[in-house]
Amino acid sequence: MKPILVFQTDFTYKEGAVCAMYGVVKSVDRELEIIDGTHEIPQYDTWSASYRLYQSMKFWPEGTIFVSVVDPGVGTPRKASVAKTADGYYVVTPDNGSLTHLHQWVGITEIREIDERINRLKGKNTEGVSVFHGRDLFSYCAARLASGIITYEQVGPAYPLDEIVLFPLAEPVMEDGKVKGVFEIGDPNFGNLWTNIPLAMFFEAGFNYGDYLNLTVRHEGKVVFKEKLLFQKSFGFAKKGEAMIYNNELMRVSLAVNQGSFSKTYHLDFGPDWEVEFEK
Amino acid sequence: MKPILVFQTDFTYKEGAVCAMYGVVKSVDRELEIIDGTHEIPQYDTWSASYRLYQSMKFWPEGTIFVSVVDPGVGTPRKASVAKTADGYYVVTPDNGSLTHLHQWVGITEIREIDERINRLKGKNTEGVSVFHGRDLFSYCAARLASGIITYEQVGPAYPLDEIVLFPLAEPVMEDGKVKGVFEIGDPNFGNLWTNIPLAMFFEAGFNYGDYLNLTVRHEGKVVFKEKLLFQKSFGFAKKGEAMIYNNELMRVSLAVNQGSFSKTYHLDFGPDWEVEFEK
Amino acid sequence: MKPILVFQTDFTYKEGAVCAMYGVVKSVDRELEIIDGTHEIPQYDTWSASYRLYQSMKFWPEGTIFVSVVDPGVGTPRKASVAKTADGYYVVTPDNGSLTHLHQWVGITEIREIDERINRLKGKNTEGVSVFHGRDLFSYCAARLASGIITYEQVGPAYPLDEIVLFPLAEPVMEDGKVKGVFEIGDPNFGNLWTNIPLAMFFEAGFNYGDYLNLTVRHEGKVVFKEKLLFQKSFGFAKKGEAMIYNNELMRVSLAVNQGSFSKTYHLDFGPDWEVEFEK
Repeated sequence: MKPILVFQTDFTYKEGAVCAMYGVVKSVDRELEIIDGTHEIPQYDTWSASYRLYQSMKFWPEGTIFVSVVDPGVGTPRKASVAKTADGYYVVTPDNGSLTHLHQWVGITEIREIDERINRLKGKNTEGVSVFHGRDLFSYCAARLASGIITYEQVGPAYPLDEIVLFPLAEPVMEDGKVKGVFEIGDPNFGNLWTNIPLAMFFEAGFNYGDYLNLTVRHEGKVVFKEKLLFQKSFGFAKKGEAMIYNNELMRVSLAVNQGSFSKTYHLDFGPDWEVEFEK
Repeated sequence: MKPILVFQTDFTYKEGAVCAMYGVVKSVDRELEIIDGTHEIPQYDTWSASYRLYQSMKFWPEGTIFVSVVDPGVGTPRKASVAKTADGYYVVTPDNGSLTHLHQWVGITEIREIDERINRLKGKNTEGVSVFHGRDLFSYCAARLASGIITYEQVGPAYPLDEIVLFPLAEPVMEDGKVKGVFEIGDPNFGNLWTNIPLAMFFEAGFNYGDYLNLTVRHEGKVVFKEKLLFQKSFGFAKKGEAMIYNNELMRVSLAVNQGSFSKTYHLDFGPDWEVEFEK
Repeated sequence: MKPILVFQTDFTYKEGAVCAMYGVVKSVDRELEIIDGTHEIPQYDTWSASYRLYQSMKFWPEGTIFVSVVDPGVGTPRKASVAKTADGYYVVTPDNGSLTHLHQWVGITEIREIDERINRLKGKNTEGVSVFHGRDLFSYCAARLASGIITYEQVGPAYPLDEIVLFPLAEPVMEDGKVKGVFEIGDPNFGNLWTNIPLAMFFEAGFNYGDYLNLTVRHEGKVVFKEKLLFQKSFGFAKKGEAMIYNNELMRVSLAVNQGSFSKTYHLDFGPDWEVEFEK
C-alpha cells in the first residue's frame, strides 16, 4: 500500500488553501490517502509545528509521509526539504525550525532539498506564484513521493544534517531535591501547559502520585505563580476548578485545572523564558 | 467491507490529539476508513456528546462504529464501554451520560466494558499514561473491532443495561391548548435553539404552518422571552433578522432568526431549566 | 474510479450537520470518497462560496463533484441545481449566486434542477423537513451521481444558462498609468486582501517586483488608506509587520502585512465598494 499523507499547516479551513493542496495530491494520484493532522497550528509558529510533528508521528504506520507547512519564509531562500527520520517516517517541510524536536529527540538520518525544476507543479497558471509552496511544491512533491513516481533520492540533492535549522531545546535538571525545567508547549484547547520534565525524573526525585508539590513559575526571571499542588495521574483526582500536576500523554510533567484552563486562569504561557521549579 | 469509524470529541484540531488517535487506528489496520463526526463538542459537555450521537447516527450505514470521546473523568473509575444500538450501530465511549439519547430514544441492546488488559495500546511509552484514553483505549479498541481482530464479545465483559449512566430527559406535554417543553439543544453555529417538542404534537394541538404563535420562554421559572412569532417550514419565510418558529432537521419544533442568531439575539440557551410554552 | 465529492458549507463542525450529510453519502455508496473543501464559509455568504469554488476547483481531477451548501434560502423556491463546468467538473448547489465566478471565468455549459421526486432522500423521518437540503437533497443527489446510480441527465430538467443567478463582477482597468480595481475577496485566516487585478496588468502598466507603488483604497468613495508600498513576490521581502503588495496564488495583485493581518491592521474589507488604485 502507498504511504498515507498527513498534513499540518497554519492555514485553517477558513479559505480554499487546504482544498487546493488536496486537489493537487489527488491529481497526482487518485489512490493516495490524505489525513488532516491539523490546520490550526498558530500562525507562523514553527516551534509548535515542530512539537506537533514529534507528538503524534510515532503512532502512525512506518513510512507515513508528513507534510508540514508553517512557512512564513515562503518564496525566500529558506530551503524546502524532505527529511527522513530514524524511525522510518518522511517529513516534507520548509527547513525553518520545524524539524527541531524530531532531529533532537528521534533523529533525522537524511535530508534532501526539493528540486523545484522536477518536483514543482506545472501549468494551471501557477508558475509565477511564489506564495503557496504548500500547493505548488510541498503537496505536489509529497504526492509524487507517496505515489512512487519519484524515489526519495529523486526529491533533490541531500545536504548535511548539521545544516538543519534548529531551535535550542532546554534540558530539565534535578538538584537539591528540586526539579527544574520550562513550559515547552501547551494544549491550546484545554489550556494545559506541558513541561519538558519526564515523569521518570519526578520519580527519581522522590515525587509520587498523591504528593502535594510546591510549584514556582518564573517568567523572564520573575515569580508569576507559586502554589502547592496535587500531583496525580489524571484530572479527575483534583476538584473541579482546581489546579493540579499530572503526567501528560507523552510522559511529561504537566499542569492543568480540572475542567478548566490552567493557562488562562493563571495567565501563564510557554516558551524558553517560562521556567518551572518543583519541590516537596 | 469493514465498518467506518466516525469520531466525535471535544479536542478540537488545535493540537496533536486527533492526529495521534487516527495514527493508532491506521497502525492497527491501514484499510480502516476514518471520518470526522466533529471535534468541536463543547468541552466536557457529555450532554451534547449524547445528542450529537443521536442526531446523525441513523444516516450512516448499519454497523458503523462511532467513537465518542468527551471524557472529563478519564483515568478515574468511570467505565470505558462499547454499546450496541437497537438499529445496529456500535458506540465506543466513556459511560458518562454520552449514551443517554441513544438509550432512551433508539435503544441500547448490549453494553460491554473494555478490557484494558487486551484492548489497550501497548508500547510507544504509553503504558504509564492515564489522561488519553481517546488514543490508548477507545481508538485502539474501536480499530480492533472494526478490523475484525476482536469480536464484539471480546471487547470485554457485558454489564447490565440499567447501569448505563443517564441524564434525565424532559418530556413535552400538550394541555389546555398549550404545548410545553424545553430547549434541549442548540445549533452553536447558526444560533438556533431546538425544543424537545415533536412537530406532530404541534399539528395535534392545531398549530399549522403560517400561524402566528405566542412563545413564552422561562429560565429557572422566570419569563425571559415572550413574543408572537411566525411558525413556518423554513427560515426564508420570515423577514431577514426576524425570529420565527420552524420544524428542524429532526422533526422537532425549533427557534431561529432568519440569517441571524436566535440564541445570541435574545440571550437564551438550552438545558432542563429553559422551559418553552407555545399557544395560539 | 468514481469521482471524489468535495464539500463546502457554512455549517462549521460545531454540531452534527456535516456528520449527517456524510452519513447519507456513505449510505448511498460506501466506496465514495469525501473530502472537506471547507465548512467555514462565512454564514450565508454566497459570494465567498462562489469564489472558493473557483479558487480550488482546477487543482482537482476532472470529473470531481463539488457540493456547495451556503443556502440561506433553503426551503423557499430558489432552485437546487447541478451545474457542469467547461473544464469538466460538476457543482451541486443552490442556484443563488454561488455559481457566479465559475460561470463568468470558467464557463458553465449545462445546468439542471434537481428533481426532488427522484433525487431526495426517503425515509428516516426526513420527508417533512424543509431546512436541510444539504443532507436530504444535495448530498443524496451528489452521491447518486458520483456512484453512477443516476446519469447527469437524470438529475432533473436542464434550464437555460442565462437563468443562473449571478452577482455582478467588477472589471479592473488601466488608465493614465494607474491600475484600478476592487478588493474582491480576502483570506480570513492571514488577513490578506485580494484584488481583481491580474498580475499581467501590473506588468503591462510597467510595475515590476521591487517597485514602491502608491496604493489608494476608497470605501464607498472615501479614501480610507493611502500609502507607498513595496511590490514583491512574497511576504518575506518586506520587514515583519510591514504592509506590502504581492502576487497571490491565483496570479492576482494582493495586499498583506508580513506576519500580520493587513485587513485587521488597517480596518479594510472586501466587496464592490472597496476600490483600489495603484500608481508609481
